Amino acid sequence: MAGTEFFTALPVSEALAGFQPRRRVGTEAVHRHEALGRVPASAVLSGSALPGFARSTVDGYAVRAADTYGASDGLPAYLDLLGAVRMGVAPEFDVRPGGCVQIPTGAAIPEHADAVVMVEHTQATMPDVIEVTRPVAVGEGIVRADEDVAAGGELAPVGRPLRAQDLGLLAAAGIEEVEVRRRPRVAIISTGDEVVPASSRALGHGQVRDATASALAALVTEAGGEPSLRGIVPDELGLLTKTLESAVHDCDVVVVSAGSSVGARDETAAAVESLGESGVFCHGLAIKPGKPTLLAECGEVPVIGLPGNPLSALVVFRTVGLPVLRLVGGITAAPAEPSTIATLARAVSSAAGRLDVVQVQVRDGAAVPLFGFSALLSLLTSADGYIVIPEAATGLDAGTPVTVTLYR
Amino acid sequence: MAGTEFFTALPVSEALAGFQPRRRVGTEAVHRHEALGRVPASAVLSGSALPGFARSTVDGYAVRAADTYGASDGLPAYLDLLGAVRMGVAPEFDVRPGGCVQIPTGAAIPEHADAVVMVEHTQATMPDVIEVTRPVAVGEGIVRADEDVAAGGELAPVGRPLRAQDLGLLAAAGIEEVEVRRRPRVAIISTGDEVVPASSRALGHGQVRDATASALAALVTEAGGEPSLRGIVPDELGLLTKTLESAVHDCDVVVVSAGSSVGARDETAAAVESLGESGVFCHGLAIKPGKPTLLAECGEVPVIGLPGNPLSALVVFRTVGLPVLRLVGGITAAPAEPSTIATLARAVSSAAGRLDVVQVQVRDGAAVPLFGFSALLSLLTSADGYIVIPEAATGLDAGTPVTVTLYR
Repeated sequence: MAGTEFFTALPVSEALAGFQPRRRVGTEAVHRHEALGRVPASAVLSGSALPGFARSTVDGYAVRAADTYGASDGLPAYLDLLGAVRMGVAPEFDVRPGGCVQIPTGAAIPEHADAVVMVEHTQATMPDVIEVTRPVAVGEGIVRADEDVAAGGELAPVGRPLRAQDLGLLAAAGIEEVEVRRRPRVAIISTGDEVVPASSRALGHGQVRDATASALAALVTEAGGEPSLRGIVPDELGLLTKTLESAVHDCDVVVVSAGSSVGARDETAAAVESLGESGVFCHGLAIKPGKPTLLAECGEVPVIGLPGNPLSALVVFRTVGLPVLRLVGGITAAPAEPSTIATLARAVSSAAGRLDVVQVQVRDGAAVPLFGFSALLSLLTSADGYIVIPEAATGLDAGTPVTVTLYR
Repeated sequence: MAGTEFFTALPVSEALAGFQPRRRVGTEAVHRHEALGRVPASAVLSGSALPGFARSTVDGYAVRAADTYGASDGLPAYLDLLGAVRMGVAPEFDVRPGGCVQIPTGAAIPEHADAVVMVEHTQATMPDVIEVTRPVAVGEGIVRADEDVAAGGELAPVGRPLRAQDLGLLAAAGIEEVEVRRRPRVAIISTGDEVVPASSRALGHGQVRDATASALAALVTEAGGEPSLRGIVPDELGLLTKTLESAVHDCDVVVVSAGSSVGARDETAAAVESLGESGVFCHGLAIKPGKPTLLAECGEVPVIGLPGNPLSALVVFRTVGLPVLRLVGGITAAPAEPSTIATLARAVSSAAGRLDVVQVQVRDGAAVPLFGFSALLSLLTSADGYIVIPEAATGLDAGTPVTVTLYR
């Protein structure tokens, strides 16, 4: 049988550290309403201080703190009620010594007031006089005009996908458009003589529908990229080279999901090498499942050749593809993945120097490994998540506490 | 000051258990390419078995297992090479006793073969004869025709948002459209005399831009809903009632973010009560921040009145709003949130019977609480996540291990 694989497998840690394609996406302006999860191309700064005026943090009376010193239930401070501040408008009264102004939470502090007494610490037994029964310190009950953000201060950092609260702060600062990284465009090329489009109704004996492309497209979308499905290319060098060339031309990342035949894998490498300015970084990764993985650069565009089995392909894309996608897309602070600690229900063997990714179900605090042929997608759909057996380990005993990364 | 709050606060656990509005969204058919994160309205079943034919899991030779019994390096089994199976087509040869057929990984098993010998365990020193040097058991090297999914078997369960691998399995089964729950439409009504649209360039003294609506819209989108921004309603009962009525009419969930004035809060309750067929479930929640929260049902539509301060509003919406959104949207298996275990850097006080949500930064394994006025959105944007101090606790000591739910 021709094409039996002769390659040395690169440790995953070395691949992650060393495979740093130069491609970076450009930027575009998007409206704040469309900016959730988008990646600021530079820190977003505030044009002015926020909230922009000193506000009351309580319902009560704006006072001069000095007028309340020594006040108690037995000996209240008697202050003249000069008026009331209304929400959303400039105060019409200033606070002279011995006076106070009624103020609701969030309203603007009147001139010459330096504290707000909570209504709970006052009594109003006489008309136009407020009895204050507790002293307040200067600044109490007040949020400063620049306490949320100073003028020129940072509203959102560069490289961290925008979260709900970031959009709230942008709105507070009146920022309608944000300059963000363009979504990385990811070409997904399927190969394999046995693979037919997912839309095929009837299958010939020996044919399978293209499952990997749909799952990869979803992973790309989830990670903030824009999938570009390039269809299924027959196992023929000329056709694959042509498809690869066009994908490299108009995409930022190219993913080739190989057919499961040995020939298909070899041809991806050959097609990459036939393009000018390209280099294969590694052909073979010390990961299980997923050894027959190809990492290459065409010009500056990363090309990731995935193994043919859907499960292996998805494991490898999560492990080495998503970090590349984040790099190209300008994400420097990757959002955390959900995880849980569980006790390994059965021993799992591994080989030193190899990263093992094991699908698991989590039941009552136990992580139950799911084993099976790596073409079986049902292993992935029935898994709650996966554990990683590090390169240094030769396996994990039953009862070992493990971190399960949870699918969501 | 009129309208000082007199309400008893309901424990959050009771609100979560008891507030079960009847509204459920209907269903719609979406293409598989658009189905990531969508919620199947019923279990998705496979019309046929997958992969649909017995496949080889290795590169090697399809054999009758019985022909290999006792084979070893010293005494190989000699089998006649009858031909080869090609990828993606029906095998042209069947395996008679004493014969074998060359087969690549993933190809269809020929008739009468019941195992596949790996190429590594064979030699081909004579033309048309294969020497097998290890025995194989029946079924070895073969994945059954129904091993991924049986005919009529479940491809994706009801109520769990579709994940990348689910879409892969749907593609494998040739399923192009999925019947999913419609995205819940969530009306977001802002109130408060001091609140002006986020698009306002210049602010009057005492005015603030509507930050909460933008952040809420993002939270709704993230949770699979469809936000419908209804703008800012002045603190006036008639206008609020009218806006609420129209929102209840064409949305599945209604959220009112109150102005920070006491009057605005009271008016939300009055507006809800003025609509027919409505009931206030609770007015006041034992949560900090977020006590002035209103939960009600208008007809069957849940109405959530949030506190006026942006931080409080977002904390409450995460805590009680998202579960309601999932309920209405048919999600029965909520995706896990990212989290990490950290050591509390400072003591945090609480009150028994109250749920405290404390924003934290995580630094070198320590959770550092962020304190400040709950109108400050920068507390949320600079937080990595939050911890929850349970209702039973009266605070946590410095050094306590805590679970931090991480923002993403």
